[in-house]
Amino acid sequence: MRDQLQSATRIVIKAGTSTVSNDDGTPSLVRLGGIVEAIARLMRDNKQVILVSSGAVGCGRSKLRKQAAMHRSLRDHMNDLGDEKPTHYNSACAAAGQLALMSLYDTMFSTCDIEPSQFLVTQRDFNDEGCRANLKSSLSSIVGVGMLPIVNENDAVSGNSGYANVPAGCFSDNDGLAALVAQLFGAELLILLTDVDGLYDRPPSAHGAKIIREVHPASLSAVEFGPVSKGGRGGMEAKVGAALRALEMGVKGVVMASGTTQNVVGRLMGGEDLGTYFSTSISRKASFDADPSEEAAAARAAARCLQGLSGAERTAILEGVALALTARAPEILAANEADVAASSNVAPHLKQRLGLGAAKLATTAAGVAALAAMGDPLGKVYVRRELAPGLVLEKRSAALGVVLVIFEARPEALPQISALALRAGCALILKGGSEAKESNAALYRVIRDAVVAAAPARAKRALAAAVTLLPGRDAVARLLKATDESPAPLVDLVVPRGSNDLVKHVQKSTKVPVLGHADGVCHVYVDASADAATAVKVVVDAKTDYPAACNACETVLFHEACVGSGLAKAVLDALVAKGVALFGGPGAVARGLVFTEADKPEKWEYGCLALRVDVVPDVAAAVAHVNAHSSGHTECVVAEDAAVADAFLGLVDSADVFHNASTRFADGFRFGLGAELGIATGRIHARGPVGVDGFLTYKWLLRSASAGGDAASEFGSGAKTYTHKDLALAD
Amino acid sequence: MRDQLQSATRIVIKAGTSTVSNDDGTPSLVRLGGIVEAIARLMRDNKQVILVSSGAVGCGRSKLRKQAAMHRSLRDHMNDLGDEKPTHYNSACAAAGQLALMSLYDTMFSTCDIEPSQFLVTQRDFNDEGCRANLKSSLSSIVGVGMLPIVNENDAVSGNSGYANVPAGCFSDNDGLAALVAQLFGAELLILLTDVDGLYDRPPSAHGAKIIREVHPASLSAVEFGPVSKGGRGGMEAKVGAALRALEMGVKGVVMASGTTQNVVGRLMGGEDLGTYFSTSISRKASFDADPSEEAAAARAAARCLQGLSGAERTAILEGVALALTARAPEILAANEADVAASSNVAPHLKQRLGLGAAKLATTAAGVAALAAMGDPLGKVYVRRELAPGLVLEKRSAALGVVLVIFEARPEALPQISALALRAGCALILKGGSEAKESNAALYRVIRDAVVAAAPARAKRALAAAVTLLPGRDAVARLLKATDESPAPLVDLVVPRGSNDLVKHVQKSTKVPVLGHADGVCHVYVDASADAATAVKVVVDAKTDYPAACNACETVLFHEACVGSGLAKAVLDALVAKGVALFGGPGAVARGLVFTEADKPEKWEYGCLALRVDVVPDVAAAVAHVNAHSSGHTECVVAEDAAVADAFLGLVDSADVFHNASTRFADGFRFGLGAELGIATGRIHARGPVGVDGFLTYKWLLRSASAGGDAASEFGSGAKTYTHKDLALAD
Repeated sequence: MRDQLQSATRIVIKAGTSTVSNDDGTPSLVRLGGIVEAIARLMRDNKQVILVSSGAVGCGRSKLRKQAAMHRSLRDHMNDLGDEKPTHYNSACAAAGQLALMSLYDTMFSTCDIEPSQFLVTQRDFNDEGCRANLKSSLSSIVGVGMLPIVNENDAVSGNSGYANVPAGCFSDNDGLAALVAQLFGAELLILLTDVDGLYDRPPSAHGAKIIREVHPASLSAVEFGPVSKGGRGGMEAKVGAALRALEMGVKGVVMASGTTQNVVGRLMGGEDLGTYFSTSISRKASFDADPSEEAAAARAAARCLQGLSGAERTAILEGVALALTARAPEILAANEADVAASSNVAPHLKQRLGLGAAKLATTAAGVAALAAMGDPLGKVYVRRELAPGLVLEKRSAALGVVLVIFEARPEALPQISALALRAGCALILKGGSEAKESNAALYRVIRDAVVAAAPARAKRALAAAVTLLPGRDAVARLLKATDESPAPLVDLVVPRGSNDLVKHVQKSTKVPVLGHADGVCHVYVDASADAATAVKVVVDAKTDYPAACNACETVLFHEACVGSGLAKAVLDALVAKGVALFGGPGAVARGLVFTEADKPEKWEYGCLALRVDVVPDVAAAVAHVNAHSSGHTECVVAEDAAVADAFLGLVDSADVFHNASTRFADGFRFGLGAELGIATGRIHARGPVGVDGFLTYKWLLRSASAGGDAASEFGSGAKTYTHKDLALAD
Repeated sequence: MRDQLQSATRIVIKAGTSTVSNDDGTPSLVRLGGIVEAIARLMRDNKQVILVSSGAVGCGRSKLRKQAAMHRSLRDHMNDLGDEKPTHYNSACAAAGQLALMSLYDTMFSTCDIEPSQFLVTQRDFNDEGCRANLKSSLSSIVGVGMLPIVNENDAVSGNSGYANVPAGCFSDNDGLAALVAQLFGAELLILLTDVDGLYDRPPSAHGAKIIREVHPASLSAVEFGPVSKGGRGGMEAKVGAALRALEMGVKGVVMASGTTQNVVGRLMGGEDLGTYFSTSISRKASFDADPSEEAAAARAAARCLQGLSGAERTAILEGVALALTARAPEILAANEADVAASSNVAPHLKQRLGLGAAKLATTAAGVAALAAMGDPLGKVYVRRELAPGLVLEKRSAALGVVLVIFEARPEALPQISALALRAGCALILKGGSEAKESNAALYRVIRDAVVAAAPARAKRALAAAVTLLPGRDAVARLLKATDESPAPLVDLVVPRGSNDLVKHVQKSTKVPVLGHADGVCHVYVDASADAATAVKVVVDAKTDYPAACNACETVLFHEACVGSGLAKAVLDALVAKGVALFGGPGAVARGLVFTEADKPEKWEYGCLALRVDVVPDVAAAVAHVNAHSSGHTECVVAEDAAVADAFLGLVDSADVFHNASTRFADGFRFGLGAELGIATGRIHARGPVGVDGFLTYKWLLRSASAGGDAASEFGSGAKTYTHKDLALAD
């Protein structure tokens, strides 16, 4: 929506008092420098710019003080004025300061080879048609010769007193002036730099006030405005009024942003989502920072409601979802066909996973039904311990809470993950890829309807938010940011399922725990004791069964005895026969096993029919190599020697470690987890393929059956003593 | 060490070319503005400042270009010069630019009411004693009248050519000039703003190059220097040489920092650890950014080594630690006495926990011995599943890896947590409070020695890093930052044990998973069905047993029937008798239960003999209140009605939920966990009181006993099928 900013060629920038001045009224050299350098960049890019600058009053105050210090008589005059300076003092400051500010601008712009030119105007100049026409043509001429007009109200003449009622075509402050200038100049874009981060939906100090990021004038009726800014004349209402008048007068877009944000103009023009963007060519619904806290609060309430249901009630909901996926299959498949039909621009690797089809949908529904039949994972007893007679502690599984899952393509992920979450009593916030937009919307509708229909009456309302589908990527970013900033987590876990870039981006951009894996650099170590047929079968499967998968093998390490025995060659020949390109590490090249030297680092995910090959002296070296270069996903040892296999399984520090079995088995379905939330290479919460466990935590329950309950002080005093006796777990 | 910066009253700031100029040679308005405003602040604080500024050459180049564009003859001259300008072109630029730069400085400083004054000097002025004296007295006079000397080399005269050999008392660049000026001026501090972040221990582009934060001249021999900076004349070696000469000549401290860092002067003077600090009054050992990656790498190696030991070997190490704590008790207790003796300035709540004493140390040693006897927590089977005949999957407990624990006071935490970590095969990086510095150092020595002594020979070397004690808080910050930035985690978990502020600070400053709790706002709900004696006992204990503890009760909620029945009054009377101040929520005040209205929000940790009291209509409202306002730590229901208790235990979303038992039981020792890593209010990894489980994760092991191994493609092709049969867990 903000593309208009980059394409604008005629731009008016208004810098308010709070932007150009420090708190003590002196010019802010850092911020003025930033504005000057940003304008210079715009002008170098052949944009035409006009600067409307406040600040002369503050500049003049400091000038007058200085003069006063030098000339006694003036100082006496100042002292006579005392703290309560009369109104016309502002005009005097303006007159004194105008030159000082312009001289500062002149010096600064001249370092960028820009000649500024001063325009001092009053309301009258806009009221009078002749004056307007003169002003317009002067501005155009100055801009035309590559100079920069700097416009300000001629306060010394106008009295700098503001106006209670602003007739059409007039201005009461520099925001209004900037709007008139923008019209006169035919600007496409007006940037109002002020002292607030943007327009809020209520006074910024009010609880829960939110910035409106994009707003159509038609949706402004509900907004309450905040108070007048320090040092400047224009309150928020006046600023918004100026923005709206500019739009009415034909300016295409107005941005209101904080002038104290570092490099604000450069970042706005670079497309960053700062401030509030006013335009008539956007949706009439005001766009906020995606309201993540409200959606997250509804999800939290749904999670608590789900937890409060009985296991049988949650089972009924899952059965309802499974049935609905079958009953409403035509609707889902039609939506999916629309996505597939519209996928000509979708990347091939996503396109390939986009199609759903009746068979896959039926399998998915059956998977949901299987989760319904799996039994309740909540309330499982992990520990039961008598702390003292009559005082029994239990550690029981509990629902994690609210989980955010971001996934690409594969629309069947939506019902699969939803079913896992519902089974575990968790609420889910989902963001699917835009390539599967219609499929995801249909699946979401079907699931939400089914959850509400199957929920007990008391829970229907809350459970409408058990699964939420977020509209866009911005919403995800804002939800993560809001969770980082909120005192209580809005989201307990985020699961990015997609490209490495997506995962890394999510990991970098939030403090919310992330479950997932950025890359899968899996190793197979072939020991001296390996059976040749096993080695060939396992390595070929690990590399070629699905080379793009995260659990495909990227490096094979041979014990050096395999070089002499011919085992290494047998394995490599089989790989080459399958079309695998081999890249040798130093050991493999030195021993003539592979001719092409690897030009990638040890930790490299080829993701295609390419493989790194190297040679190690023993299993300890293989373990060290794997621990140094693996992504912690899945590794495999091929060996007949049980001691070697045990050493590898014990010492390799990855989520999955396999013996004589292909790395490709690292998968939630193959592991028998029912469905897969994701594969985690982190070490916290859950590891490797993650099913319903990813949605679980535990809680400690302590029950006293002692007469009169139990107090800790009774143990401190010695009246009671701890027994700490573990009890049978069975309920 | 950097206190000298804040106390310096005479300061020379040198701004290099890369600081004052943009890449195209034009002055950087943003950076110059920042320097001007920073100097103005220093001068307002009555500091005396001299600015040594480069940049005239770049300023002059742009000036000459502009002039050339206006005057044909000059342009022709420029064209004649072509790309290869002769050396004297620099001098011409300098001459042309000097005025332009000074005029810019003049304009900028005048906005801050500062009059700058220009000093152009050459080497000769310093060689000649008369000239030196003149220069010195002029500088002093100008500074004395509150003006700012701006010094630069008189390039137009000197030729701006640099010098291959710099005799003593001479300069070859503005860094050297700044050093001479600093001496002449009697400056305490010289700030060299340049284009690098500081001095690195090898060329900054070299792999593993690290910034030296504090350096004594004597420790500089090992440093290799990088190349000359862009636009400027002084290479790193010259800059360091200038810094060293300044120190030799009596300047107390020199900082070298990047001039492009935002507000660098202000932040340096505010004590921020930017750049490299040179001084002779600091340790001779160069202080780096605390080498976190090397320490973390050693810890990771130790963790892997520990994992590779047998359970019996880890047990032997724990036994060794327990014995050493007893055998070397005198050494530990003496160190602790020294801490206690030096604790007059320590906050009372820390002081109270600082003392160790023979009895407490003996209990601690017994606790370590108990953990040794507890048996191996690694390799426990959680899942054993036949995926297909001959293909068996196991999910087994595994060591988490490297854990960072930050703790305050309580020196016994060090051996307790170390023992938990060793039991679980994890390496530990510890940072104790400075108030327990000697105690921690002694405990660390004893444990490290014991670990190495008890370790098998093959593991001794690696296990010296099984427990690491970090020297300072900076090291923690850098370790967390390095972990955030490293592609592979250096630390898997961080556990802050201390004040709310410490925990919140850690949570905010890192992406490493944090285990802990910032606050403990615990609730007791007294139901209509509660037994009066039980209610009194539980509530009084929960509030008064140890009011400062995180598991103390902060809010008691009464079912409204308790108001009429007198039960609420009985409980409150008992609290008042114990000296508890009661603050009423709206319901409690309205019903006349409590007279003083609570002026704190619902979520408030009093941490003393003060309690919030409120009234709710039923258990559902109690649950809703708790879930909305609790910190997720520990809550309690007092009820005889089992359905009410079950509802509360089931629906309250906190780590610990108790029935008729005081919240004070929420504690690792009382729970029978042996020792306590911490209490977690997060929902990921571990929850509530955390013992050895906090150091554990799990891994998936898959073993094929099939002839020829197992390939995933055999299942895809239908040759084999998954059976997914759960097997007995017993080994």
